Amino acid sequence: MRLAVENLAQHARGCAILGTGGGGDTYASELATRAALQQHGPVDVVTLDELADDALILPVAGWGAPTVGIEKLGSGDEGATLVSMAERWFGRPIDALMIGEIGGGNGVEPVGWAARLGLPLVDADGMGRAFPEGDMATMHIAGVDAAPAFFADERGNGLVATPVDAVWLERIARALVVAFGGAVAGADHVMDAATARGATVLGSVTLASSIGAALDVDGLDGVLRVTDGRRLVTGTVTDVDRRTTGGFARGTVTVDGVGEDAGRRTTIHVQNENLLAQEGDRPLAMVPDLITICDEGTGEAIPTERVRYGQRATVIGMPCAPIWRTPAGLRVGGPARFGFRHAYVPLEELSP
Amino acid sequence: MRLAVENLAQHARGCAILGTGGGGDTYASELATRAALQQHGPVDVVTLDELADDALILPVAGWGAPTVGIEKLGSGDEGATLVSMAERWFGRPIDALMIGEIGGGNGVEPVGWAARLGLPLVDADGMGRAFPEGDMATMHIAGVDAAPAFFADERGNGLVATPVDAVWLERIARALVVAFGGAVAGADHVMDAATARGATVLGSVTLASSIGAALDVDGLDGVLRVTDGRRLVTGTVTDVDRRTTGGFARGTVTVDGVGEDAGRRTTIHVQNENLLAQEGDRPLAMVPDLITICDEGTGEAIPTERVRYGQRATVIGMPCAPIWRTPAGLRVGGPARFGFRHAYVPLEELSP
Repeated sequence: MRLAVENLAQHARGCAILGTGGGGDTYASELATRAALQQHGPVDVVTLDELADDALILPVAGWGAPTVGIEKLGSGDEGATLVSMAERWFGRPIDALMIGEIGGGNGVEPVGWAARLGLPLVDADGMGRAFPEGDMATMHIAGVDAAPAFFADERGNGLVATPVDAVWLERIARALVVAFGGAVAGADHVMDAATARGATVLGSVTLASSIGAALDVDGLDGVLRVTDGRRLVTGTVTDVDRRTTGGFARGTVTVDGVGEDAGRRTTIHVQNENLLAQEGDRPLAMVPDLITICDEGTGEAIPTERVRYGQRATVIGMPCAPIWRTPAGLRVGGPARFGFRHAYVPLEELSP
Repeated sequence: MRLAVENLAQHARGCAILGTGGGGDTYASELATRAALQQHGPVDVVTLDELADDALILPVAGWGAPTVGIEKLGSGDEGATLVSMAERWFGRPIDALMIGEIGGGNGVEPVGWAARLGLPLVDADGMGRAFPEGDMATMHIAGVDAAPAFFADERGNGLVATPVDAVWLERIARALVVAFGGAVAGADHVMDAATARGATVLGSVTLASSIGAALDVDGLDGVLRVTDGRRLVTGTVTDVDRRTTGGFARGTVTVDGVGEDAGRRTTIHVQNENLLAQEGDRPLAMVPDLITICDEGTGEAIPTERVRYGQRATVIGMPCAPIWRTPAGLRVGGPARFGFRHAYVPLEELSP
């Protein structure tokens, strides 16, 4: 598979759906990536099996507040800075980029970096969705060391960090996010292909593109078919209680059903991403399963920072990648991690 | 020459004199360094001529507020973290450490790091004194690139930065200082011995030790003889106007003369370091020449953070290293750089 100018929009729409509200807006990322693909040509998307066991893979993503990401544009050179730091550090070439987080703009921006660098992009990611915190990655569950971590800004500033643990990685990253004006590009959990085969969500890039293609052809019905998802409710956004605290957008979104859902009131709890949808006390879907608020008309995902009163929306649920349903996965990305008292119940049981 | 348990105190007292009030308190540094020398044995101090042209030299220093440095002690492993990051980055061993700033505790702490690492210490530094800002180094005047810069804290966290310019190096360093709790160890302007011969102040380590030895034997008269310095005034500290703003200790110290200096009032302007001593409008000494406030009884230097009302003090001036008196040196470390309207006049003319 190749990502090119022609199918980029589908890919971006799929990433937005997998973003569950977060991962950053795809609009600016799509524009920058389109320009890179026009100038440098398409990007090869390769499976991990196509790579040699010792091929070195650099997972990349943006750190920072998505609200800043909309206004503070990248230069497109961040990927090159990250790769050059990593190659120097490891004393060997990087063989492929990997999208750290397929959801939202973080699933789109690395496509442009790969195009500029002439590097293939691995058909995998570290989440299969978007998640708000740095350790919520399948590489972390699999025991891959996050360090060394690499950082780059749009001016060409680069850093390598070897923090003693994940807490210090987070502190250093946050300090750099602030120093660099609210957003910084990063790479961590660098690994070889043999390790990546057991430590990532396989097929994420083709899944995102398939979701976008299905959305184009069949609207949300297509999305639900490709993702084995289900429609949770269709209605009107009647309340948005959202505040930015501790570096996150937190709050709730209320959707009052219309048509066949009339009389149903659904509340969605948010920390950057949509984490829990419930009707009264009854959960309809919960992390790590995916919950996305979509525009009822176009079917496109509405990111957390753009949800507003009066929108007509369809809320969908999609099963997460299987690794998130293991005990280790639920410890890192399950409802208890976010402070919910519900024990995890899979989407398929909650909303059959 | 070797730095050992027996002559460490003399070295530290000499560094304090060369600190001109700044460079960090020597007390905690001396204790930590004494322990390292006891455990690992003495440190060889080598001239740059003794090293091969391509020997790689790592200049090291502390970043942060000296007031924090008194309370936040190092682990002693910072030097090892810096060296291991630098060796990885350059893909070759570091051959010698260099004291980035001979003045104050920054002239003492690297001795302990060298002892622990079994590395020689170069008989040179980047200032021949202490200076408050990162670019005020002879390597900067000589055009040596500050980047890559290395940082380490006492927990084992390490960083490599490749900032685009000196402004970004300063911003990144300040962000890390804050993230790490007010102080961080750093290394920058890494260079080979051939470059260092023309880009450093030669003989700084032996000078510091000579000053300390002369102080032991002959008190301040000995210091003035070794440094070609002069006594500016002896008196009582009658006013200390000091505030910590913008990360620096700034203000003035007033000394009213006693004995043969009775009736003379000298004002010393401070930004971490003592920058300008004047009697009324008449300057007695100014940067880049050295101005140190010494205890009248012991002759020991009184660092900026310990100067207080009622102290009996002798203020001395000492000529700076010749490179600071070149046009390029004065641009970086002359009176105009600190906002004084005086044109630079050498100490020997101001106070013959």
